[in-house]
Amino acid sequence: MLHFQRSSPTRLVRVFLCEKNVRTVRWDVAEQAVVMIDQRRLPGELIELHLQTPAKVAEAIRSMAVRGAPAIGISGAYGIALAATCSQAGDTNTLLAELRDHAALLLEARPTAVNLRWAIDQMLEQAESMRDSEPQVIRAALIKTAGQLADEDIKVNKRIAAHGAELIRDGDTVIHHCNTGALAAVDYGTALGVIRYAHELGKQVHVLVDETRPRLQGSRLTAWELEQYGISYEIITDSAAGYFLQQGHVQSCLVGADRVAINGDTANKIGTYMLALAAHATGVPFYCALPLSTFDPTAPDGSAIPIEERSPDEVLKLQQGGEPIAPLGAKARNPAFDITPHGLISAFITEAGILLPPFDRSIPAAIQEAGAR
Amino acid sequence: MLHFQRSSPTRLVRVFLCEKNVRTVRWDVAEQAVVMIDQRRLPGELIELHLQTPAKVAEAIRSMAVRGAPAIGISGAYGIALAATCSQAGDTNTLLAELRDHAALLLEARPTAVNLRWAIDQMLEQAESMRDSEPQVIRAALIKTAGQLADEDIKVNKRIAAHGAELIRDGDTVIHHCNTGALAAVDYGTALGVIRYAHELGKQVHVLVDETRPRLQGSRLTAWELEQYGISYEIITDSAAGYFLQQGHVQSCLVGADRVAINGDTANKIGTYMLALAAHATGVPFYCALPLSTFDPTAPDGSAIPIEERSPDEVLKLQQGGEPIAPLGAKARNPAFDITPHGLISAFITEAGILLPPFDRSIPAAIQEAGAR
Repeated sequence: MLHFQRSSPTRLVRVFLCEKNVRTVRWDVAEQAVVMIDQRRLPGELIELHLQTPAKVAEAIRSMAVRGAPAIGISGAYGIALAATCSQAGDTNTLLAELRDHAALLLEARPTAVNLRWAIDQMLEQAESMRDSEPQVIRAALIKTAGQLADEDIKVNKRIAAHGAELIRDGDTVIHHCNTGALAAVDYGTALGVIRYAHELGKQVHVLVDETRPRLQGSRLTAWELEQYGISYEIITDSAAGYFLQQGHVQSCLVGADRVAINGDTANKIGTYMLALAAHATGVPFYCALPLSTFDPTAPDGSAIPIEERSPDEVLKLQQGGEPIAPLGAKARNPAFDITPHGLISAFITEAGILLPPFDRSIPAAIQEAGAR
Repeated sequence: MLHFQRSSPTRLVRVFLCEKNVRTVRWDVAEQAVVMIDQRRLPGELIELHLQTPAKVAEAIRSMAVRGAPAIGISGAYGIALAATCSQAGDTNTLLAELRDHAALLLEARPTAVNLRWAIDQMLEQAESMRDSEPQVIRAALIKTAGQLADEDIKVNKRIAAHGAELIRDGDTVIHHCNTGALAAVDYGTALGVIRYAHELGKQVHVLVDETRPRLQGSRLTAWELEQYGISYEIITDSAAGYFLQQGHVQSCLVGADRVAINGDTANKIGTYMLALAAHATGVPFYCALPLSTFDPTAPDGSAIPIEERSPDEVLKLQQGGEPIAPLGAKARNPAFDITPHGLISAFITEAGILLPPFDRSIPAAIQEAGAR
């Protein structure tokens, strides 16, 4: 288990994420385990969890040890691979039935991000397509498929980054909400990947990092990543974004997405809607960067997307296990996502290119084209 | 010094604020000191500070031991009274010069709230009008004037509350930002006073309390006050307000103000602008409750209002002296206020009644009428 204290040299951490290219979520062949960075401990400690049962993967997703739509998706895929390797099933039908049960449990862990369902569906389809094979063959195939999905996720992220970087000009200041970097994916990231790639191209980018209450993915994770990449940034409270937009110092807002309806209505981390309203009011472009797998063809609009409500404790305490910041016995509400209506979104940045309004045409066209390839 | 631990019975605290009607800021005759609740320690501890020099009052304002536009104003007035009582000046001219110096130091403590300037101006005018009196007479008069301003503040608050309560219907859910209750004033409060009065009239009101990062006046102070008054509430993160407005469960937003330009552009706690945008987008009325002294006749519009930027530490830590929530060495920006353009405001609730648009007519008319009385 890796364990770097807060006081450890930054270089060590940089080597870990940037130079060694260690993935946020990966499969350990020797251990037959899913290994993931415990994101609840950052930026204080860099610790990897080694999970050897699908139930532990589900718990890691639920408790947000791993978070970010793409990272949750790949974790789910590895969870199915783990369900297969853990299974004692002697025949294929029993194995397939067990996989479906574990899939249901994994899906329940986070209801909003559609990538989880998408990745698990890919795994189940793979298993079902091998009905005539021996369980042991299916087990090996599922580990391989999950690995391919992870590899593909990185490639998709880099294509998103290449398309999106065209929208960032030298000298731009960008507001970013939540965390959408390497930690939110297998590696590289979506919206933060766009910023990272623009920086790698030599463009000067300054990021105003929404701290993203209640879980503080911005100040804990995004700021940490930007430190590693050497990108200029300042953390702001979520409610200060409007002030900076109003001042005219911001050229674009860039966020990820957890699920997008076919008309472009977008579920993303709570606060995205208010940021999009402020961008719209001040005439600043608002971009969502995401893989095509985040579009949900079964959701005609935002009202079809379930919004997860998490524990009030996340609002009543500033950190997990931390001191309460409200009177004892105080009540709180904690929706984890909101819906940004498509009219507030300037463009979706995907691996297939930049999708412009009207989204009810451009989104189905991009999905269809990707399916035809 | 009063000192109730977090674990102390709620009843004690309720007696303190509601039944004994202890003021947030008051003058202690025996000690010749300004006594105020240290709001940085709530809700964990209820402690009063006893301040015996104007410099200590300025520091209490700067460090937000006392905050809220009306409470800052009265603290400033008592600071001048304290400057007079502390002065060794043997002649009136020397005393008046000393008072002007102390006034300048007090004014620097918080630049945005105009009530501070207003209250200090009242005190200086009183002193100047007594040029022909002995220093000792002026000292006594200033203590009396500050007390009158404090008494008047409570009366004004109750008139604001009576007007505003007409806008709250039985069964309403209201979003409230920052703290505008008894703690933000000498007693009773402005926007929270409106809610409190509606509750006292027997109306069912449910308050969604914006936690109000970075200083958490919502979760620390407003939730604490609502507990004392027995008013139903739930704390939400500031960025979740848009979600609840979008759901259609909110009937109005109610905030205070730190300075309002003559055209209605309003400086208030950071996050007010984004809340107003969300209210506007969802068709929910957005009200500002404030004494007429919050209008600044010298500011034609919001661009004339200085915005205080406070220490990045408030963003990088969740509580004063608490654990950092960002990587070591992280940078942050921390504007304490923003400007809500007048077009997003449905009405101003004042002691002179409810002011409706066009504000560039209704605000000057209300100020003129009050001056004529």
